[in-house]
Amino acid sequence: MQEHSVGIVSPRIERFDEPLSLVCGRNLPAYELIFETYGELNADASNAILICHALSGHHHAAGYHSEDERKPGWWDACIGPGKPIDTRRFFVVSLNNLGGCHGSTGPTTINPQTGEVFGPDFPQPQVDDWVDAQARLADRLGIHCWAAVVGGSLGGMQAMSWSLRYPKRLRHCVVIAAAMKLSAQNIAFNEIARRAIMSDPGFADGHYLKNGTQPTQGLALARMVGHITYLSDDAMASRFGRELQPSHPDDENSDAPQFQIESYLRYQGEQFSSVFDANTYVLMTRALDHFDLTAAYGGDAITAFSRSSCDYLVLSFSTDWRFSPARSREIVDALLAAERPVSYAEIEADEGHDAFLLPIPRYLAVLDAYLKRIEV
Amino acid sequence: MQEHSVGIVSPRIERFDEPLSLVCGRNLPAYELIFETYGELNADASNAILICHALSGHHHAAGYHSEDERKPGWWDACIGPGKPIDTRRFFVVSLNNLGGCHGSTGPTTINPQTGEVFGPDFPQPQVDDWVDAQARLADRLGIHCWAAVVGGSLGGMQAMSWSLRYPKRLRHCVVIAAAMKLSAQNIAFNEIARRAIMSDPGFADGHYLKNGTQPTQGLALARMVGHITYLSDDAMASRFGRELQPSHPDDENSDAPQFQIESYLRYQGEQFSSVFDANTYVLMTRALDHFDLTAAYGGDAITAFSRSSCDYLVLSFSTDWRFSPARSREIVDALLAAERPVSYAEIEADEGHDAFLLPIPRYLAVLDAYLKRIEV
Repeated sequence: MQEHSVGIVSPRIERFDEPLSLVCGRNLPAYELIFETYGELNADASNAILICHALSGHHHAAGYHSEDERKPGWWDACIGPGKPIDTRRFFVVSLNNLGGCHGSTGPTTINPQTGEVFGPDFPQPQVDDWVDAQARLADRLGIHCWAAVVGGSLGGMQAMSWSLRYPKRLRHCVVIAAAMKLSAQNIAFNEIARRAIMSDPGFADGHYLKNGTQPTQGLALARMVGHITYLSDDAMASRFGRELQPSHPDDENSDAPQFQIESYLRYQGEQFSSVFDANTYVLMTRALDHFDLTAAYGGDAITAFSRSSCDYLVLSFSTDWRFSPARSREIVDALLAAERPVSYAEIEADEGHDAFLLPIPRYLAVLDAYLKRIEV
Repeated sequence: MQEHSVGIVSPRIERFDEPLSLVCGRNLPAYELIFETYGELNADASNAILICHALSGHHHAAGYHSEDERKPGWWDACIGPGKPIDTRRFFVVSLNNLGGCHGSTGPTTINPQTGEVFGPDFPQPQVDDWVDAQARLADRLGIHCWAAVVGGSLGGMQAMSWSLRYPKRLRHCVVIAAAMKLSAQNIAFNEIARRAIMSDPGFADGHYLKNGTQPTQGLALARMVGHITYLSDDAMASRFGRELQPSHPDDENSDAPQFQIESYLRYQGEQFSSVFDANTYVLMTRALDHFDLTAAYGGDAITAFSRSSCDYLVLSFSTDWRFSPARSREIVDALLAAERPVSYAEIEADEGHDAFLLPIPRYLAVLDAYLKRIEV
């Protein structure tokens, strides 16, 4: 157990029986959300921070589920006593979004109307739907106004959506390594990931659970594609270079990996495909593709942000080519034009998009300084 | 039929019965090479230019195979009467490399020792093997010394290899959008392409022809991955943006493409998988991964280029992120340090790596000016 850790944590589940009407036009009659909390909610509920997860994230953001857990939650670098999201001051809420595969209602949940898993019939949620579900969770927890809503990547999109959809319900919006919408190249990578999954015969049109199969190869491939886009060219070069595998086969016709980068990617892909649900992956990438912060505002970012009433912190990483600093500066420029208070930092980091998950000193220092300013 | 076209052309095949010993240690007892020629070889055979093709290229670089052919050869923008590679002055030779699937001996050829197609048992060629086979073709055509060896991408690697392997057999080396070796990120993309092919059940460990199947989905996916890396982010944005398909399905759970970029990539992938051989694709990407111009020279590029005795033209494109201008500048810096004559231009172009195939005015002008200087 690390020092500065929130220690052992246990997820909770809240059930919602009021139907949620989704952007796609369908209703979810009832659903459950799994979440964790770290720290204590203060008397006037003014110290709550919401953490929004990215593509393959979940509710377990900090601490450990047991003494035996090898790794802490996915954002343990930032959340804990004395860390930037300081659990001595803040009450932190981290949930698994609707459509997820870690305990919230999603494709692997039994559909009460059919008695079988939703599978590919789970309605496609959009970022706004997640935000609506998160708002209901806030109601349930007695949090009228978040001290901050914080997210990286797809999580940053949720944070921005909060600031337009519920402008009175957050005081600060922290948007890390995100964009107002995906580029054609971003969509293209997601499309390849979906093709890889859907063309795996084990996918069975999404009915793999009923079918007793798994699109293991396709999901692994999808993750490999994603992984390349999370790492910078430089990060790959310094970690793997062109080093051959110690046991690389002399026979180059062999299917075995020959370079270390191949072996690494295969390992990452295989690991991921053993724990993540393929329908969830498809659904999360679709939500990413369709996110367009300004669509409801005639495509005008200034009009959009003029609705907001919170302060913003925007962060980007120098070698991130998935959501490059230029995409963050678009957000900052629109916020400035809309006369919203915004702080911006571009963090020098070799690790590409992945940097937002890593304990990079200047990143943590900027986040820490910003959050320390928040009165609770 | 375009003006400035070489017009109707017919490929030729030469058979070689002397075994070729390959870098991998295996021998190819006999093989055939398919090639086209444009223009006339002059009396002292001093006007011959060799064109080396890239990953998915072939011998049909210019002109038309018939009046009905819809598109000319892949480099018709550069080759023809009055074009930079001017067929009024030069005799141009363009072949399909060993291991290809367009008529040269490769995985789809019958192995005379077994009476069945080579399939995955075709020996893995390397760039140096291709150059050796090209040198024998030059002998057969009576060309002792090329006026120039020219290639883009993987073709540029062959051109550089020529200049070290047969320094007396070329006067000029034109290296377009290439690199001395692949980066870990380049290898990673190739690995994903191979995984996509090999994990398609239709691949049948490479024995798909014997098996009566085709890894259509896997090969299409491989091509989609490649295609993203050929285009710049900007090129994709300006061609496709985030435009939805005119007939995009309202049901977002549908598998049908929703954005134009998805539809485009699927089309490209499907087209490619109907005409290209999967084993050849695997083999070509492996040759790319293993290419390392300086490996035989202790990893020192200056030592390597000191062997050469030709002039060089190096070209790169501003938005090429597969082989970025920085990779071309590494070549130029090493050539300068080795005191070799080198001209270099970085061409402003939005089209990414694909730019080397396109009629970009400054690109054609630089190539034209350089080649006009060559005495024949």
